[in-house]
Amino acid sequence: MQILTRTIFLRSKGEGDIIDITPETSKILSQSKLKDGIITIFVSGSTAAVTTIEYEPGLRQDFPNMLSRIVPENIEYQHENMWHDGNGHSHVKASLIGPSLTIPFNDGTLMLGIWQQIVVLEMDINKRERNVILQIIGE
Amino acid sequence: MQILTRTIFLRSKGEGDIIDITPETSKILSQSKLKDGIITIFVSGSTAAVTTIEYEPGLRQDFPNMLSRIVPENIEYQHENMWHDGNGHSHVKASLIGPSLTIPFNDGTLMLGIWQQIVVLEMDINKRERNVILQIIGE
Amino acid sequence: MQILTRTIFLRSKGEGDIIDITPETSKILSQSKLKDGIITIFVSGSTAAVTTIEYEPGLRQDFPNMLSRIVPENIEYQHENMWHDGNGHSHVKASLIGPSLTIPFNDGTLMLGIWQQIVVLEMDINKRERNVILQIIGE
Repeated sequence: MQILTRTIFLRSKGEGDIIDITPETSKILSQSKLKDGIITIFVSGSTAAVTTIEYEPGLRQDFPNMLSRIVPENIEYQHENMWHDGNGHSHVKASLIGPSLTIPFNDGTLMLGIWQQIVVLEMDINKRERNVILQIIGE
Repeated sequence: MQILTRTIFLRSKGEGDIIDITPETSKILSQSKLKDGIITIFVSGSTAAVTTIEYEPGLRQDFPNMLSRIVPENIEYQHENMWHDGNGHSHVKASLIGPSLTIPFNDGTLMLGIWQQIVVLEMDINKRERNVILQIIGE
Repeated sequence: MQILTRTIFLRSKGEGDIIDITPETSKILSQSKLKDGIITIFVSGSTAAVTTIEYEPGLRQDFPNMLSRIVPENIEYQHENMWHDGNGHSHVKASLIGPSLTIPFNDGTLMLGIWQQIVVLEMDINKRERNVILQIIGE
């Protein structure tokens, strides 16, 4: 059994950007030579999140639209009243979705569905640089 | 330390169906003979999700009702405009809840609360067959 | 590779209470002497959840406010019609956020962002005592 820690560096375009990290994750898994185990995907930071989605242009709009319906930008946030940085709603969205995801792999392959991609969701109002942590435990 | 991969096969009744996989998960854990570790539960596919809930008839309605309030079927989805498969809202619901759950076990027993069951949430509009992956890491 | 199971005991103030368990989690990790691996944080029970958030007074109001907008207390819950315990909405909130979180650590340090804390969200209507399980797999 081994533990490997890797980082995916990415640049987001700001709020609503959804970035597919499946190819990079698969490549890192392949390079690890590990056959069975779990990959934990974790985004450091409090205004981004990870989930899986069918990565296609329609849902890339529909999912952020849902978040903006339930966490609208134009209502009062106490975070905003205290810090005036304009991203109170971004924090609320990120905590709702969560920063971590655990995906099993078997025979060297991520056990995802065919139309299921691993994505990082940017919620911050500005372009951001993000480090996404991949930790692989397996054999 | 060992890694075991198992699959639970199930048939759902379509959108809003909630399936309790706790008994099957406990049985698989028991058969593994492992005493301490984690089970990762992962649903392959982009229109289903996993979480825990008190599995009783009231909440089996209340939880899907909440999802339908915040991800209504009768609004415009770009996914629908592109693919015309009627399940744009299903994808959005599934990505909101997420496909993975990690549960610790100790002394051969899942560390769940008494009224806390592991469930698969079907969001797709049709009956589906689902493979739920259980990966156990422990000793 | 080792597995350690620890429990954090806490008392919540009831619905909307958010408790920062980062200091206690870091302390337990430090005492374990493990350098690389993952911590699974799991809350037993069906009316509490875990996530990460920037733990500051503004968001401690904004996040519960969001949950109460999308899971209002004053609508009909079938759970309530059956059990009359007043916490149907608490269960729905908890299942939406989820009970588990997996955080990688490297060189003995949790890989959190600077403004990212691990929190337990109390959704139940009463003060509660909670056992939060930490399971560390690492070396």
